[in-house]
Amino acid sequence: MTESDIPSFELWSRERAKHFEWYADAEMPKTGREPKMLIGAMRYAVLGGGKRIRALLCYAAGDVTGASGAVLDRAALALEMIHGYSLVHDDMPCMDNDTLRRGKPTVHVRYGEATAMLAGDALQTEAFTVLAGVEDAETAKRLTATLARAAGVRGMCGGQALDLAMVGAAPGEAELLRMQAMKTGALILAAVLMGAQSGGWEKLGPAARAGLAAYADALGVAFQVVDDILDCTQDAATLGKTPGKDEKDDKPTWVSLLGLDGARERARALHDRAYEALGLVAGDPAVSDDALLRLRQIADFVVERSH
Amino acid sequence: MTESDIPSFELWSRERAKHFEWYADAEMPKTGREPKMLIGAMRYAVLGGGKRIRALLCYAAGDVTGASGAVLDRAALALEMIHGYSLVHDDMPCMDNDTLRRGKPTVHVRYGEATAMLAGDALQTEAFTVLAGVEDAETAKRLTATLARAAGVRGMCGGQALDLAMVGAAPGEAELLRMQAMKTGALILAAVLMGAQSGGWEKLGPAARAGLAAYADALGVAFQVVDDILDCTQDAATLGKTPGKDEKDDKPTWVSLLGLDGARERARALHDRAYEALGLVAGDPAVSDDALLRLRQIADFVVERSH
Repeated sequence: MTESDIPSFELWSRERAKHFEWYADAEMPKTGREPKMLIGAMRYAVLGGGKRIRALLCYAAGDVTGASGAVLDRAALALEMIHGYSLVHDDMPCMDNDTLRRGKPTVHVRYGEATAMLAGDALQTEAFTVLAGVEDAETAKRLTATLARAAGVRGMCGGQALDLAMVGAAPGEAELLRMQAMKTGALILAAVLMGAQSGGWEKLGPAARAGLAAYADALGVAFQVVDDILDCTQDAATLGKTPGKDEKDDKPTWVSLLGLDGARERARALHDRAYEALGLVAGDPAVSDDALLRLRQIADFVVERSH
Repeated sequence: MTESDIPSFELWSRERAKHFEWYADAEMPKTGREPKMLIGAMRYAVLGGGKRIRALLCYAAGDVTGASGAVLDRAALALEMIHGYSLVHDDMPCMDNDTLRRGKPTVHVRYGEATAMLAGDALQTEAFTVLAGVEDAETAKRLTATLARAAGVRGMCGGQALDLAMVGAAPGEAELLRMQAMKTGALILAAVLMGAQSGGWEKLGPAARAGLAAYADALGVAFQVVDDILDCTQDAATLGKTPGKDEKDDKPTWVSLLGLDGARERARALHDRAYEALGLVAGDPAVSDDALLRLRQIADFVVERSH
């Protein structure tokens, strides 16, 4: 196969997102079944929207270890369900009180607060049901451990708690990094690790494993930096969510910390660091360089995106 | 060992609850670590209180299959974390809006709504972390599947959604049964199954497995019936929570449906049904009759308790 035979990133990511949507639609609780409102809210929160960065990272990292599609689908869905639940709860009035997400009313605006809370709760549970459905028990256990660690008190929930404590507190770069590494970085790391763990994880050497983690860490920060840049340069129609909200809420951002030019420079540096980290992975005898193509392209996309 | 050598139920349950408390205290995120408020709220929700019915059922069912203490501890903690998270979220203003639980202010009263929501979220996650720590992967996977099924849209969360839809709707006995079977019955069933699945589950025949499930189903309903009786006959100091709340919220109860005498009669009938179901378990060649002692005693306790 020559290079021109390999589908472009745009084609690949569109096909993967479409496949994911089909799989998620089939695997999630069905519309029309009881309790209808709850299931409706869960599906609304996960289906039909989002950049699917976590799912794409999972599929791309699966190439590195030759993971099977059936396991990757479960890992990707579990990741997107955890991500979706966190958005539903974060948007609620007692948290960020946001009304617009992915260009649509947030779940609590559409379904009410009680159903939104339950939908978030149930999405988290179903994520673990989906992983328990992975046939090989060792793989199921490893994926569950990775996801739960990323989502819990030392990861996403803990980061959200630090974020709450930070409003109006003028934290420095180290505090902002630490909070974001937990709040969003942990799940992005989990997406890369779970993709690789869905296949021949045992065959990867320690340098390749460390390389994947370093790639994910750099990408996670880059994602946040670019989010903050877009938040103050794009309008709601492009973003699909309310822009300028962090500034209004007096929350620290990479732009408030480094300025717009400084933030752009940082995003480029993190992009380069993500590429370097993949060099460690490419050096592993179990990995072909081709297997890293999509991970590189995702790093490009994350810093070049407009929404 | 003669019968008089076997510790009484009171001694056994007190020892098990104390052991559980010690294990949970050691296994949960530590006080003083960041994020302090979140960890404080999580520990407040789980430690130092509650009847520990789910933990006791899990330990008792573990006797039936000779489960190891190390696995049972994890299963019991995961169950109590899921139960604790559900109470934290159910008590919040957008749900039942309750201020008293286990004789103390509810989590959102003490820590604020945002931290209460996060603490519930993180407790659910940590429950799955705890199960992923079970050494044998097959057992870890089975326990995860059982717990997630019980806690999700076809179990606890789904039942809570049906309950919300039921306020002021004057449902009949069948609707009330169905809602409660999901809202509280599913986790009680999970407690019994997870106890048995922590040991030699494969050795149990289909009749014994069905017997354990029937025991748990009867016990789950009995628990609700007795809860409703206590709710209209006891005061807040005895209950540790606000009494008469369901009636005030115009929610259906077993007492409003059957009357106080009818509800007491129903509790006795369910107790007998639980005993009968254990007969199916006792008939299994892999099970000694002694192994069922604690399950019988828990059935006695559930219908005779005063809080």
